[in-house]
Amino acid sequence: MHLATLLQPNGHHTAGWRHPDAVLGGDQEIDVYRRLAATAERGCFDVLFLADAVGLRDRETTAQLSRSPIAVCLEPFTLLAALSVTTSRIGLATTASTTYNEPYHVARKFASLDHLSGGRAGWNVVTSFTDGEARNFSRDRHPDHASRYARAREFVAVVRGLWDSWDDDAFVRDKASGRYFDPDKLHVLDHRGVHFAVRGPLNIARAPQGHPVIFQAGASEDGLSLAAATADVVYAAAQTFEDARSFYQRLKARVAAQGRAPAALKILPGIQPFVGRTEQEAREKHRALLDLVHPDAGLGLLSTLIGVDMSAYPIDGPVPDLPETDSHRSRQKLLLDLARRENLTVRQLYGHVSNGAGHHTVVGTPQQVADRLQHWFEGGAADGFNILPPYLPGGLDDFVALVVPELQRRGLFRTEYEGHTLREHLGLPRPDLPATAGHSPMPLPSSRA
Amino acid sequence: MHLATLLQPNGHHTAGWRHPDAVLGGDQEIDVYRRLAATAERGCFDVLFLADAVGLRDRETTAQLSRSPIAVCLEPFTLLAALSVTTSRIGLATTASTTYNEPYHVARKFASLDHLSGGRAGWNVVTSFTDGEARNFSRDRHPDHASRYARAREFVAVVRGLWDSWDDDAFVRDKASGRYFDPDKLHVLDHRGVHFAVRGPLNIARAPQGHPVIFQAGASEDGLSLAAATADVVYAAAQTFEDARSFYQRLKARVAAQGRAPAALKILPGIQPFVGRTEQEAREKHRALLDLVHPDAGLGLLSTLIGVDMSAYPIDGPVPDLPETDSHRSRQKLLLDLARRENLTVRQLYGHVSNGAGHHTVVGTPQQVADRLQHWFEGGAADGFNILPPYLPGGLDDFVALVVPELQRRGLFRTEYEGHTLREHLGLPRPDLPATAGHSPMPLPSSRA
Repeated sequence: MHLATLLQPNGHHTAGWRHPDAVLGGDQEIDVYRRLAATAERGCFDVLFLADAVGLRDRETTAQLSRSPIAVCLEPFTLLAALSVTTSRIGLATTASTTYNEPYHVARKFASLDHLSGGRAGWNVVTSFTDGEARNFSRDRHPDHASRYARAREFVAVVRGLWDSWDDDAFVRDKASGRYFDPDKLHVLDHRGVHFAVRGPLNIARAPQGHPVIFQAGASEDGLSLAAATADVVYAAAQTFEDARSFYQRLKARVAAQGRAPAALKILPGIQPFVGRTEQEAREKHRALLDLVHPDAGLGLLSTLIGVDMSAYPIDGPVPDLPETDSHRSRQKLLLDLARRENLTVRQLYGHVSNGAGHHTVVGTPQQVADRLQHWFEGGAADGFNILPPYLPGGLDDFVALVVPELQRRGLFRTEYEGHTLREHLGLPRPDLPATAGHSPMPLPSSRA
Repeated sequence: MHLATLLQPNGHHTAGWRHPDAVLGGDQEIDVYRRLAATAERGCFDVLFLADAVGLRDRETTAQLSRSPIAVCLEPFTLLAALSVTTSRIGLATTASTTYNEPYHVARKFASLDHLSGGRAGWNVVTSFTDGEARNFSRDRHPDHASRYARAREFVAVVRGLWDSWDDDAFVRDKASGRYFDPDKLHVLDHRGVHFAVRGPLNIARAPQGHPVIFQAGASEDGLSLAAATADVVYAAAQTFEDARSFYQRLKARVAAQGRAPAALKILPGIQPFVGRTEQEAREKHRALLDLVHPDAGLGLLSTLIGVDMSAYPIDGPVPDLPETDSHRSRQKLLLDLARRENLTVRQLYGHVSNGAGHHTVVGTPQQVADRLQHWFEGGAADGFNILPPYLPGGLDDFVALVVPELQRRGLFRTEYEGHTLREHLGLPRPDLPATAGHSPMPLPSSRA
């Protein structure tokens, strides 16, 4: 079983930051993260993961936002690089958008993080989802779903190509002869595509992992087909075992249809755990947080996830019929299906999304939580889990102190790290340089004009 | 006197990497940098600085490049973030191009580095200079000088505006009331200019320094006027005391003409020191490196700096007349003037640029080196220096062990850090949030469409 954990500065639950024991960000934020990373590494997690967006949520009024634990926090590349120094084994992954970045920058930063960490970097490929992000990058609106995914697919191909700019042993640095690198081991990508023209080579040596690990999370048709073709790990969101298993089977079949081994892609559903020494204690923890969700914060989050301003509807009325939106399509459908099925009011639905944002919540003793994970894992619904602590550091501390040892006792999870790189933790091979790698024009094309 | 040092992975001298004691990059590069940063901090340097480009040099054949200590190294944001953990007082600055970046990303990364380091971040603003970089970003050629500088000026204004997105005390994080931030302390930039439309706010709290320190190095007319308007520190390249003083006086006059106090901008000429316990030892160190410059490497570097392929001319013939190029204009003029003045051959000129790349080289005992620095400093040619160690780690070790104590004995340089932030080291005030800061439409404009 593989374990990731998402470290959001205020915990995964909307009211997580209001938990009496929650440690808040601010000036000492790096120290908070240092401690969280150390805890996750003590728990032998495969990887810690930082979500990211390049702008605030934008479906909300400032009043709603001001009640929300908004993502105003350290920038993930700099934060993970700092954590590469304070940790030694755990993988370090973050989101980077293919819509508001350039492949050269992204390829380079992940390669650098991989070097700094000795082979522990991972990239969560997203296409972003708000107009608010577009407006921070000189655009009026977020591009539509299909064109974002077309760009994303080409973006990933360019990044992978740039990661293969140099053979692993290209840099001979022979002082005696004055030869710094072997010219035969330089590969010029010279990509010319629909969205990008990128010559390369990348100005950093090949990464310890060859390619940093690629994560994805989209569950739309476009997202699934991108993942089946290119991802090493997929984060999934499922409310029930049946949904998770169905998703697992569909995605693995698509992977196979691409000619890849199904085991080459790991599927990790998100799980928000509330762990108590007794079931009663766990339930009380869960209830207490739900009571702390401010209506402004709840409505703001719901509006963002659904892509429609939900404060326009009566809070205790039924969830209305809504037009399909272009952003965040799969999440919207999941939430509206749930509202129909359980006949929820707007208030009940925001209570629901505050509580795990569409992910599965498990509330119970360490044995009960481990039972649930074991059932999903052995029942063909998961290769492991992305643990979403509802508040921090307590939510992670509890999981590592109580649930991880139970999983280890059952022989489901490692008791110590065996490998050193994230690929080794995940059981993924290190990619060779393809035989076709960039034997493009040399000397560097059109450079001597 | 202020001291910066440029840490290039292979030293500043073209043959620095071939020095018998040079420690090379590669897999353990972070450990090399850790040691260099610790040495510079032991020497009480104001700041360590990483140069950067987003592509390899592109005026050269692969054969030439393969003899050169090319900048294939760790990406600077991730590297500086890692060094923020291993150091505690020294400033951490790097180059980021305004031509091949977006202001939102740049503002955010420097703010994050400033948080991680407790107020030690600095940004060296450059406009880049090669077509090779353009071709890594889906463009055919590097934009012309004037349009690059127009974009740069607007870019810096947007970054500064984004750094003022939040009051210093905006984040109240009041668990009891559920208020996360004070809406009156959020400022939406809503910039709409010629090159950029950036709404903001930035998704990170205001930096410890308010604004990270802004460095610049361009010496063209456009570069000087950008610096006079916006820079906190300028790196200068001058061969002689007279040139340095003339530059110093001109730039300080321009600063005053902008209504700024001349002391608000610090000028640090680059100095490449060869320090020996005797003058003879220093001269031998200098000579030995010059002899190690491979002709391919020398011609390649010269071609890049001049913007013209110099291997087309007889190596032992005179430096020919050359057309003015659009890239790297001020450096080209400086080198051609020198070749005329001293009647240099192509080989002699590449020997010259291999040796400091247009910067002043000083060769001598610790007393002689300190004499030179004191003369420039007290003679009105410098507020301090950017030390360019010809090879690493020895070139920096020598300077810190031998020259810094001499400067300290003379009362010219601090014996311990007094402040904690880079601004404090440099004697620069922390910028207040301007009274006009972004009282733009709230709630967030056009976000509820």
